[in-house]
Amino acid sequence: MREEPILLTPGPTPVPPDVLKTMGEPMIHHRTPQYQKIFRETLEELRYVYQTKGDVIIFASSGTGAMESAVANTLSPGERVLVLEAGVFGERFTKITQRYGQKVERISVPYGQPMDTDRVLEYLKSQGRGLAAVFCQLSDTSTGIRMEVEQFARALAKTETLLIVDAVSGLAVDPLKFDEWGVDVALSGSQKALMAPPGLSFAAVSEKAWRKIKLARNPRFYFDYLLAKECYAQWDTPFTPAISIVRALALSLARIQKEGLEAFMAREARLAEAVREALGALGLELFTKESQTAGLTAVQIPKGVDGAKLLSRLMNEFNIWMAGGQGSMKGKIMRIAHMGYIGKDDLIAGFDALETVLGDLGYKLKKGVSKEILEQQQGVSR
Amino acid sequence: MREEPILLTPGPTPVPPDVLKTMGEPMIHHRTPQYQKIFRETLEELRYVYQTKGDVIIFASSGTGAMESAVANTLSPGERVLVLEAGVFGERFTKITQRYGQKVERISVPYGQPMDTDRVLEYLKSQGRGLAAVFCQLSDTSTGIRMEVEQFARALAKTETLLIVDAVSGLAVDPLKFDEWGVDVALSGSQKALMAPPGLSFAAVSEKAWRKIKLARNPRFYFDYLLAKECYAQWDTPFTPAISIVRALALSLARIQKEGLEAFMAREARLAEAVREALGALGLELFTKESQTAGLTAVQIPKGVDGAKLLSRLMNEFNIWMAGGQGSMKGKIMRIAHMGYIGKDDLIAGFDALETVLGDLGYKLKKGVSKEILEQQQGVSR
Repeated sequence: MREEPILLTPGPTPVPPDVLKTMGEPMIHHRTPQYQKIFRETLEELRYVYQTKGDVIIFASSGTGAMESAVANTLSPGERVLVLEAGVFGERFTKITQRYGQKVERISVPYGQPMDTDRVLEYLKSQGRGLAAVFCQLSDTSTGIRMEVEQFARALAKTETLLIVDAVSGLAVDPLKFDEWGVDVALSGSQKALMAPPGLSFAAVSEKAWRKIKLARNPRFYFDYLLAKECYAQWDTPFTPAISIVRALALSLARIQKEGLEAFMAREARLAEAVREALGALGLELFTKESQTAGLTAVQIPKGVDGAKLLSRLMNEFNIWMAGGQGSMKGKIMRIAHMGYIGKDDLIAGFDALETVLGDLGYKLKKGVSKEILEQQQGVSR
Repeated sequence: MREEPILLTPGPTPVPPDVLKTMGEPMIHHRTPQYQKIFRETLEELRYVYQTKGDVIIFASSGTGAMESAVANTLSPGERVLVLEAGVFGERFTKITQRYGQKVERISVPYGQPMDTDRVLEYLKSQGRGLAAVFCQLSDTSTGIRMEVEQFARALAKTETLLIVDAVSGLAVDPLKFDEWGVDVALSGSQKALMAPPGLSFAAVSEKAWRKIKLARNPRFYFDYLLAKECYAQWDTPFTPAISIVRALALSLARIQKEGLEAFMAREARLAEAVREALGALGLELFTKESQTAGLTAVQIPKGVDGAKLLSRLMNEFNIWMAGGQGSMKGKIMRIAHMGYIGKDDLIAGFDALETVLGDLGYKLKKGVSKEILEQQQGVSR
């Protein structure tokens, strides 16, 4: 069995060797010119991937911390919000906003189905007045669904309503033009397409959002955007940053900038197509068939195959790590990531092992068909 | 100039080589037996340094996140709290509790002065009834003051009032017997005496605290203790952990366990004494003269010496990093840490450089006097 795991999981994802190496460098202090330089670079690079000239804030937290930060910073208790739910992470925004005492309205679709964009736009027209914010996902990692963020943003641009986007797994995967589309807050994390270890999250904040933030009364301190903005003006941070991961992120973002965001995303999109073709060749049925993210593919566990056994054998016998389903999807689907640093060779190894284990578990397939499709792909090595 | 910085700062502190090395290991996924094993070990080790058999929760955040978590999890809006302030971190609890709408009462002492324990105990006797919580520091990193946590804990043990202790810089430095004393919540962080990189924080939680947490209505999600407890029962985490830093912490805590907590703390205490003697030999005046933590020493910048210049020359010419004063203490004091992995050799190099730069800046001293004191110390190498 190979010594190092191949992560085909949608977060954490594999971290490039130079980025890993910097994680092991001796500690430095953060209130110094040495750290300020790295911090400034990282903020500039984040602006590049977010496609914004505005503010981006970095937190030491998981992506959920950033999701909560948007609720805590932009809203006051009792304000009305609309949450779009097409997966576990959509439901998470519902839970968080309920905790903060928002009046929560929801548009939900079953797992694996795309968000009903027309229904959302109609709702905004008929009942949008007085909504403080709309919460959505750029992509929901639990199902691999992608939402039409541009259409929501354009519909809300001339209103008082903020558009708050969970882009934790979608940033640098699916198009997100923060400034051009008029998104107000977009959250993300270090451990998905950005190719750094988990532990950092981000919030990009629009001018329209800042006006609301100054009035918002939900309690916050650690995730306070204004406190961060004030410190950032002196290239300082309000609290001790996760220095090692910021240094790592500076390097991984430099990789994206060097390749170019469009080329980087195009590579992910080509891998996504190849993975879906390969799964089709194996006779497997996609769980999410429309409006898919380019970052991961959710596929149904075929009848008669034990999903938990499949994943644990891939891990224990081949050191190939794929993700199962979350919540009620557990045991029914598996998720294969192809974002960030995941390349053709990783997927070839992954599908080779997948074919073997599926065959062992009694699923009928022609050995080699999926691997072959991936081998034909050009320009998708990492 | 030496290539690698010597951090004599009270967080981040130096990280041992084996701990740094593990930071650079390939990423693994957290919902796997591989990670669960590390997670379980880390929780066990944290219980050891906290001296508790109860629950310890790990967050990806700075120490301030953990401080906020205690306010968010244990209180409801409008409840009365008492905050003990003897430095910047005491004031931070005031700010956080005010943000959450607590009725905040304060007992404050000037920077550098010890907390007035008798006044606190008297206050608890006369006005303690109906207080939901008392907030204090085990040590306040801004001044190096240590508070009498044991006395506060024993005074509150038979009451309904919780004792919430910021032990971010005090854990594994100053005595804290969580269970024996009856502390209710104690917060800490990875980047101080625990010798790991910044990015993790902790909350130890007593049974008495759990009873209150179930009723507490302040909003929280990312820092939700109950959600964490529920997941931990299956050795799972509610959100993606900062995997690299947890792996690092597992190793650094194993070092403490191997040396023994008492021996580890005794070494810090001996270094503290030696540092204070060395500063005295240089004719420098301590800023905090009583009730000092064993983790750091705050010393006054002598008259006529530019504090900012002193620190930047130490850093730029010697790669020795010491910390300045926070808030209104900026430019007036400097802080030298001697916690965690900081050893005799680091301090010898630090004082050697300090003597040189102080001399260059016009301060009269006899070169070698402080270094000599440190060189005489036995059994305090790392």
